[in-house]
Amino acid sequence: MRLVRFRHGDRIATGAMDRGSEEIRILRGTFFEDPLPTGETVALIDVHLLAPVLPSKLVCVGRNFVAHAEEWGLAVPEEPLLFLKPSTAVIGPRDPIQLLPISRRIDYEGELGVVIGRLARGVRAEDAFKYILGYTCGNDVTLRDLQKKDDQWARAKGFDGSAPLGPWIETDIDPNDAIVRTRLNGEIRQQASTADMVFGVATLIEYTTAFMTLLPGDVLLAGTPEGVGKLTDGDVVEVEVEGVGVLRNEVRG
Amino acid sequence: MRLVRFRHGDRIATGAMDRGSEEIRILRGTFFEDPLPTGETVALIDVHLLAPVLPSKLVCVGRNFVAHAEEWGLAVPEEPLLFLKPSTAVIGPRDPIQLLPISRRIDYEGELGVVIGRLARGVRAEDAFKYILGYTCGNDVTLRDLQKKDDQWARAKGFDGSAPLGPWIETDIDPNDAIVRTRLNGEIRQQASTADMVFGVATLIEYTTAFMTLLPGDVLLAGTPEGVGKLTDGDVVEVEVEGVGVLRNEVRG
Repeated sequence: MRLVRFRHGDRIATGAMDRGSEEIRILRGTFFEDPLPTGETVALIDVHLLAPVLPSKLVCVGRNFVAHAEEWGLAVPEEPLLFLKPSTAVIGPRDPIQLLPISRRIDYEGELGVVIGRLARGVRAEDAFKYILGYTCGNDVTLRDLQKKDDQWARAKGFDGSAPLGPWIETDIDPNDAIVRTRLNGEIRQQASTADMVFGVATLIEYTTAFMTLLPGDVLLAGTPEGVGKLTDGDVVEVEVEGVGVLRNEVRG
Repeated sequence: MRLVRFRHGDRIATGAMDRGSEEIRILRGTFFEDPLPTGETVALIDVHLLAPVLPSKLVCVGRNFVAHAEEWGLAVPEEPLLFLKPSTAVIGPRDPIQLLPISRRIDYEGELGVVIGRLARGVRAEDAFKYILGYTCGNDVTLRDLQKKDDQWARAKGFDGSAPLGPWIETDIDPNDAIVRTRLNGEIRQQASTADMVFGVATLIEYTTAFMTLLPGDVLLAGTPEGVGKLTDGDVVEVEVEGVGVLRNEVRG
């Protein structure tokens, strides 16, 4: 099932869609409290899609694909390399990625986004999937020059707009073997299976929740494959997770 | 004026206190929407103080005192060294600091906490004080061994309980010359004026909001003076900001 957040006229609502369908069944309430169908429907084409979730935080993983670590001449870490993006970093699937005057090099990084469904603390890997609501596409937009300059990545990876999410949450894929693919202006630049991740989704949830509580709606961005690259004014970047959908954002200077 | 959040019986409420008074005037609503007095009062001694604010994020500053940077043989950065703590890191002034099995060295770091009063984006330093609600005491509790091991500090400084805040928000101090003092079991371990900070509060707000929106209730932890040190089971750590008050937390193993 696909879970969507959208604006329709003056109203912001949540809804559910069957895969392949373009009809949204409007729900009452958030995804985290057994939302009820209102009985209303609306066509996907008639709504403005919003980020499918408003996380309290995003927990992101650096260098989780061997080939991407090698792009920078870096080793894969022994333990997951975690960093945070704040709620204010999130933009939706219809929002532009805005170039910033403080940076000369803004990069895309296509990733699998894991949406947490209920409060998760001290979760064991074998139980991790009980805490997941579903999956979305994420772009870990990065100010590459400032990432190299700054000791910590709060600026380079936490700025407003650094976390495009969408187009919706798909509840029924296998996150252990999903293709993550990024297209820049229609051309494939990144493509890998999450089966090649150093640390899988369940391991990442166990590792993180050993010291940090994940709240309903929090998003784990599971790391980017090789092939990251620069964005310039007018580019269109698409992050696809097979079985989920395509997150498409234009770049504005 | 002092702004407090507290539990009284089954009720969680906000209130205001005059400096020197121990009587709380109970308010209706949050501090960010012109809360109204209910006409009720309660004695400070009869309530359980909570973290005075629930930030969406904490923006923290590393190595913002020369003498503290020198403790680690490190230079002061040319630009503010920012890192994030998530909302789940916050504990209140009556909560214990819990030692974690994943770390062998947990340190206190006493700091001035700046509480943002309204949405702040692209703020100039000369306007920064218009965006501040007030000041509190913060402890940037740090897993020092893991800070050294990890590339990014999400774990070492973002774990649950890593951000004790309190005891309340004081609206009327001069943050440019406030003494920050930390006592461990009654003994002074840190003491410096915020006048000695490399980057002052207004500069930090200008720098941060150039790329990251601060929301009402967000907290800026302005950096720690020299004299950080280890916490062990049974310790009592007190962070005092003169003119604000004392944040006191016990340590539990």
